[in-house]
This record gives sequence, structure tokens and C-alpha cells, in this order.
Amino acid sequence: MKWTLISLTALALSNTVTAEDQAGPASIEEAADRALEADTLAWDFVEGITTEVGPRQAGTEAEKRARLWTRAWLAEHGFFNVADEPFEMETWVPGDIAKARVTAPFAQDLAVLPLGNSAATPIGGIEAELVEFESFDELLAVPDGSLTGKIVYLSHDMRVSMDGSHYGQFGLARFAGPTVAANKDAAAIVIKSVGTDYHRNPHTGTTRWGDSATPIPAGAISLPDAANLERMFDRKGDRPITLRLEMNPRNLGTTLSGNVVGEIVGRNPDLPPVLLACHIDSWWNAPGAFDDGAGCGIIAAAASHVAASGQPLRTIRVLFAGAEEVGLIGSTAYSEAHIDEPIGVGIESDFGADRIWRFESNFRETNPDLHQRIANSVARFGVANSTIEASGGADLNIVRDQGGAIIDLQQDGTRYFDLHHTPDDTLDKVDPAQLQQNVAVWTQVVGILANEERSIQTGGMIPTAPATMEN
Amino acid sequence: MKWTLISLTALALSNTVTAEDQAGPASIEEAADRALEADTLAWDFVEGITTEVGPRQAGTEAEKRARLWTRAWLAEHGFFNVADEPFEMETWVPGDIAKARVTAPFAQDLAVLPLGNSAATPIGGIEAELVEFESFDELLAVPDGSLTGKIVYLSHDMRVSMDGSHYGQFGLARFAGPTVAANKDAAAIVIKSVGTDYHRNPHTGTTRWGDSATPIPAGAISLPDAANLERMFDRKGDRPITLRLEMNPRNLGTTLSGNVVGEIVGRNPDLPPVLLACHIDSWWNAPGAFDDGAGCGIIAAAASHVAASGQPLRTIRVLFAGAEEVGLIGSTAYSEAHIDEPIGVGIESDFGADRIWRFESNFRETNPDLHQRIANSVARFGVANSTIEASGGADLNIVRDQGGAIIDLQQDGTRYFDLHHTPDDTLDKVDPAQLQQNVAVWTQVVGILANEERSIQTGGMIPTAPATMEN
Repeated sequence: MKWTLISLTALALSNTVTAEDQAGPASIEEAADRALEADTLAWDFVEGITTEVGPRQAGTEAEKRARLWTRAWLAEHGFFNVADEPFEMETWVPGDIAKARVTAPFAQDLAVLPLGNSAATPIGGIEAELVEFESFDELLAVPDGSLTGKIVYLSHDMRVSMDGSHYGQFGLARFAGPTVAANKDAAAIVIKSVGTDYHRNPHTGTTRWGDSATPIPAGAISLPDAANLERMFDRKGDRPITLRLEMNPRNLGTTLSGNVVGEIVGRNPDLPPVLLACHIDSWWNAPGAFDDGAGCGIIAAAASHVAASGQPLRTIRVLFAGAEEVGLIGSTAYSEAHIDEPIGVGIESDFGADRIWRFESNFRETNPDLHQRIANSVARFGVANSTIEASGGADLNIVRDQGGAIIDLQQDGTRYFDLHHTPDDTLDKVDPAQLQQNVAVWTQVVGILANEERSIQTGGMIPTAPATMEN
Repeated sequence: MKWTLISLTALALSNTVTAEDQAGPASIEEAADRALEADTLAWDFVEGITTEVGPRQAGTEAEKRARLWTRAWLAEHGFFNVADEPFEMETWVPGDIAKARVTAPFAQDLAVLPLGNSAATPIGGIEAELVEFESFDELLAVPDGSLTGKIVYLSHDMRVSMDGSHYGQFGLARFAGPTVAANKDAAAIVIKSVGTDYHRNPHTGTTRWGDSATPIPAGAISLPDAANLERMFDRKGDRPITLRLEMNPRNLGTTLSGNVVGEIVGRNPDLPPVLLACHIDSWWNAPGAFDDGAGCGIIAAAASHVAASGQPLRTIRVLFAGAEEVGLIGSTAYSEAHIDEPIGVGIESDFGADRIWRFESNFRETNPDLHQRIANSVARFGVANSTIEASGGADLNIVRDQGGAIIDLQQDGTRYFDLHHTPDDTLDKVDPAQLQQNVAVWTQVVGILANEERSIQTGGMIPTAPATMEN
């Protein structure tokens, strides 16, 4: 996919016709309709951060550069109260060696990357027999201690799913597979990447060691390599397959990360704000265009377009969370720091840049009028209503902790796990037209919410404090 | 693309119905029609060599394993006179370090691989200002000596082309760009990969140093990285872009490579044989499914199906050339060794595994009846006739040297340069249905040629010797 050249021309053309600086939109509806055809802000953000910063792993110098870059962008684009709210974290880095080679009976390299929190191998690597498990359940079923000295290969059956639901189930291979292998005394583990593409780019991501597990080297191989390895198991006969694995990740100890915040200040700052969230960090191996540069561009653009149509009633706060990939650390820190400040409603964008197709809230029953009004307002953008209860994304911890109102604007995830946590998560994957549809839907929804006088969650009067009383 | 699971099931089902071992096909036409639905041989070859051997760079131990594997496969599948014909070559290997990082004004790693014959950087790399050239002609135009101490970045405008014609023109960036940069005293060069995909997998391939050039470090960056770098040039203002580049390729000196040959022996071995060619080597970074495992599978399967329909009049010789990627060394060695043995006609398969869409020969005017008969015979497989004069592929040097008859069965190259010389050239990219269409067309064409009594090139009587007299 090569959207860039076409898109920039198209954007430039439409910009000359309907540029917002000629005259502000007369209404939220007009602002949303304009965004669908002519938004350039989201693209500007995601192009800028991927080009001028690039990969920005949590807790590193690169993530700090991303915070500085984001603060400057927000200040340039009319946001107030822009700040970096720092927090401490334990930082793991991948090192610069990641090699896997089948040494017998068929000699061949495999493309591998370490999982977040992986242990290192000894220098020079380890070489051991590889034992194949077709599923997480199959690995769970073997006796403790039965894998002593072996390297585990763990496969799974993830497929493409528009709503991303396969990630939760088959992602166990990554989330928990390494802990199970370690508890069964394996020397190391390589998993089939938790993803859906057939390129030689492994999908990394965090693995969390259970309390009982001593970390072992844990890597992901690409799906073409996994398919090849599985064919080797089919063809090996009685011969064992041996693997040599070398990786040198390490822990840096405590470093600083931070959340960047900014505001479009409302006419009544006493009303609980609308919180728009995304995350600023990426994995080290990609510039994070889909995950989550685009999401940050979408929320910033929507807030800006709402402001351009007239100062909103409520404040719109944007939260560019740090250290999401490594365990929602920024989201947790934000909630701890701000738990006493009521949030009116929270929405997150963190599922790529493809079109929004479904609207969900957690107030369909408690505030049916508002739910239906929002559903009606986005139907013209091809977004359907839903009875599914919104649960919010990773960076909305504060809203969940407050028991507050949440909206999910579900994006088409068909391509998402082709790119997620791989080196291929680059700007060329972003389709400008679908990015604009996201901004249009967000502008419409945020515009309604930011001008809502009554409690978003219940439709009743808004109590003054504390936050949880808004329920 | 994930064809494998579907395909194996389909192959297994059709196999039980129409397996050739139940009864041989009654005619070439029937053999070709059966291959379209039920060929498993080509898949077996390409699956086997990619799984059991994998990458097999010219002149290395891996290429030797590929020759042994191929000889065993041919002997198991009914070929006679199977042999390995060795030759010496100068062997370059890529080393294990390939790093590029923009260090200012935007710090970011780029995915890079060395080009074949690249020089190494000093240990620790070199860091220098990067100078952008948008085309080969633009690089050619700057004065000699004007690039002293600089690193060249060379872009190009290659697009997808069904017939692969863009490779010849825009491939100059790789074929000759490094020599031009070296002659202008550049410290190193990185080119935008000569390819059409947007994955973080650079396209390698040979660069040939002109007589006047002293080799410099020469690498290719992936297309997403090239696009990102070009955006950096757009955004840098007056600031220079600096690049740190480290690569450690080296020359091994003289090693052995070889050509594997085999035959379906004809009823009249005195008639010049039909030569079917492919190449056995790949680059180090991929198992070479498209380039050229599939091609070798196609020619072997076609020869086998022709034999199964009855012993052909002429001998069919298969040539699995060594060391094609690094300069057609095996093809040249084969021609030197066998130049006095007349070849009746040569055909090569070396453009992936997608469907054949066009038939060309170089005897349309000298033997119009045979040309038209072949064109008519393959129309039912969706292959059109053409007035383009066939020139043959890389491994047909002997036929060109003899001035002999050549056929080109043009494959759909739309996807070819997404995969060519990248780590992504893996088995999952092969579509079994299109692979079978290739085998069907080849079976039909080779069946006609191998049973042709008269000179293929002129339609006249076949002289006894020398080869060039057949014209």
C-alpha cells in the first residue's frame, strides 16, 4: 500500500477549496462534514511524529523526544494547559542481537525478535531441542518439569477478525505462554507471532511473568518462519529439531516516562471534561503509525475542529499517555494523579487508522436519549449503532476507576494485526481517506459531548463533586 | 497471503481422484489438462527446497546442500543422467552486521541490507552527511569529486508492471548507482530498494563495479524507510541529514558452485534436446520460493508429465543453474562446457509462480506453423499469442550463444517485485492454483517441442552438427 503520494495531492487540492481558516464552520455537523473531505491535522500529526521522532519505546530517550515533539505540536495548534506529567517506570530494552537458527535436521535461519521483558540468552546463545505445541492449552497440559532443557515452540490459530477479538484469545501465546514454559522448566520459548500477516517481521509485545516464574529468553518468529518451522516438524521423521537462539535484551532499571496533556478550555470549566485518549509510546521496532500515532492525530484533530466551530461548553482534555505498550503504566499514573477530578466521559483511539464502523457506549440504558442522538449523528459516516456495552481502551483507566461514562468508536481491525508491533507499522499503511472518516466521526461525537449540559452517564443534573457521584 | 492450508487440502482431494499413477495420460493435451487441476510435483519441489534447504546463496555450503537435495529429488522422480557439474567462482558474503541510522536532525534507524559485492564499512561504521538524488540521471549529472566524504542516497520511480519492464530501467539505481557514486568519490551509498512493496524488508541484489571504480559500502533500504527518509529531506530545512552506516560483508575468495542437470531421455537421442532452465541459488536472506524454487518446480513437473504421457521423441534436459543471482555464472559455465552440443530449443522459468499470460518465440517468422500451433494449444489456459521476439532468461546463455530457438512463457509479474530479493520470498506467497497453471502450460508446450521431428527454429531438416547449423 502506497497512499502517501496520492493522498498528499488530494489533501492539498481539497484544502484549497474548504480551508477552515477561510471561515469557521457554523456547526458541529458542518465541522464533521468538512473533516471528512478536508482534514489535514491528523495526517500532519502522524506524519510528523513518525518522520521526526520515529520509534519511541516507553522509558527511553526516544519517548522523551516524542513528548517534547507532541507538546510543541499541541501548543502550535491552539491547545492550552499543555504539560508533561512525568512518572517513574522499570525499563526493559531489546538489545541489538536477535538470532534464531534451526541447526538440524534442516539448517535455516528464522526471523526472531524478543518479547518485552524477555530474559537474555548467554553470550553466543543456547542450542537445544525444540518441542512443538500447537496451542496454549496443549502446552498447559504437559507435566511440570517435563520440558527441562528444551526450547518450546508455541503455535496458535489466530485469524483476521474485524473487531480484533482473536487477539484476546490467541494472544495468550504471548501474554502467558512464556510463564507457563518457564514454570515447566523450559530453557527458552519462541512463539508464532501473534499477528495475521505473512511478512518476515515478527510481532513483539509484552509478556508478563507470573509471580512464580523466573524469566527465560522469550521470542516471537514471523508467520512465514512459523509456517516453515511447522513444515519441518511434519518432515523431520524421528529426527529431533534443534534450535540455536541468541538475544541480548536487558533491564535499564528505573527511568522516567510521562503523560502529555492539553486542553481546549470550555465555557464552563466547572463541568467535568470530555477526555480523549491515545498513547504516545511505540515499540522500538517501528515508528508506530497505526499504533498509535494515528490515534493521537485523530483525537487532536477532532478536538481542534470542535474548537473551530465555537468554544465548547465543557473542556476537552487530550491525554497522550506514556508507557502504554509495556503495561498501561501512563494510564495508571494518570488515574492515580487525577482520580479526584471528575471526568464527564472518556473515549480512546488506539486501533489503527481504518474506518469507524460501530458506536458503543456504556450509557445506552441510563441515558438512552443521548446514546441515540449520537448514534443518529454518525450514521451518515457509515457507523452503526450497537447494544454492546463500551468498556474503553487501555488509556481510560481513570474513567473505569471512577465508574464513569465511556464511548467506543470501533475501527475496522481487518488490517490491524498485519502491522501491530511489527517493523511494518509505518506511515504508508495509513489511508488518508479512512483517517479523515475517523476525524469526522470523532468531531461529531466530541462536539455533541462537549456541549452536553446534563450528566452524560445518566442524563440527570451534574453533581459538583466527587467524580463518582456523576453516576 | 496464506495459501498453504487451503491448497494442501485441495491438492490432496484432487490427487485421490486423478492421480497419474492410476493410468498415464493418453496425450500431451490430457497431461496438461490434468496438471492444471492436479499437479503436485511443482509444489512438492518448491515446498521441499524452501523447507529442507532454505536460503542457498551462490558459492556457499547452503547452495551445495541445495544441489544435493535437487539431485536426490530428480533421481526419485524418474530423471536420468542426473549430475552436478561444478565450477569455480569468487564468492561474496553479506556478513552479519547491517545497520543504518539517521543521526540528525531526526534520529531514527533505517532497515538496510548490503548489495551483493558491497564493500564493508570500518568496524563501528561511518557517519557522514547524506546527499539526496531523486534519480540515477541526477546522480550522473553532478561533477566528479563533488561527493567526497558524503554518503549518497539514490531514489527512483519504479512502479508495478505486469511484464516487469520497470526493473530494467529503474534497476539502474542498483546495477550502476554504486559505481557512479564511487567514481564521484562518495564514501558510501544507500539506494531505495529496487522493488514495489511497502514492508521493512530491503531488496538486495548484485551491483557490478565498473573497471574504474573502487568498491564502497553499498546498501538498500526498504521502501517505507526510503519514503520516511524523503520526508525527512522535505522537513529538514537548512539542517544537514547525517547517516551512520555499518555493514561487514566480505569476500571469501574462490569457492565451488555447480549446475545440476537431469534428463528425460528421448526416443531419438541424436535430435537436439529441449532445454528447460531455472536457477537453484537464492540470496542469503530468503528461502527463494518465487526466485526461483517455483521455476525449478515448474520445469521439473512439466518434464515429468510429458514423460508420463509416453517417451518423447527428443530428450528433455533440465538445467538447475548455480550462481545465477551473482552474475549468471552457472549459465556461462554451462554454455562453455556444452557449446558444441546443439540445443533444439530453450525455455526458462524464473519470474515467480503467478500465471502465464503471454507466449513469445524467436521463430514466429522462420517457423510460423510451429509458432502458431503452440499459440493455439495454450490459449485454453488463458495465454495469448504475441509478436514480441523471445530473448530467453538468464540461464539460457548456451542457446543465445548458439543462436538457437527460444521461447518465453511470460508470467504475471504484478507481485514479483514485492518479493524479489527480500526476506519475504517465502512459500506462503506461492498460489497453488497459479502454480498448476504454469505446469499445465509448460507441459503442453514442452510436449509439443519434445515430439517435433523437424528443426524448431526453421521448420526444416535438422542438420547433424554443429549446433549453430540448426539455424
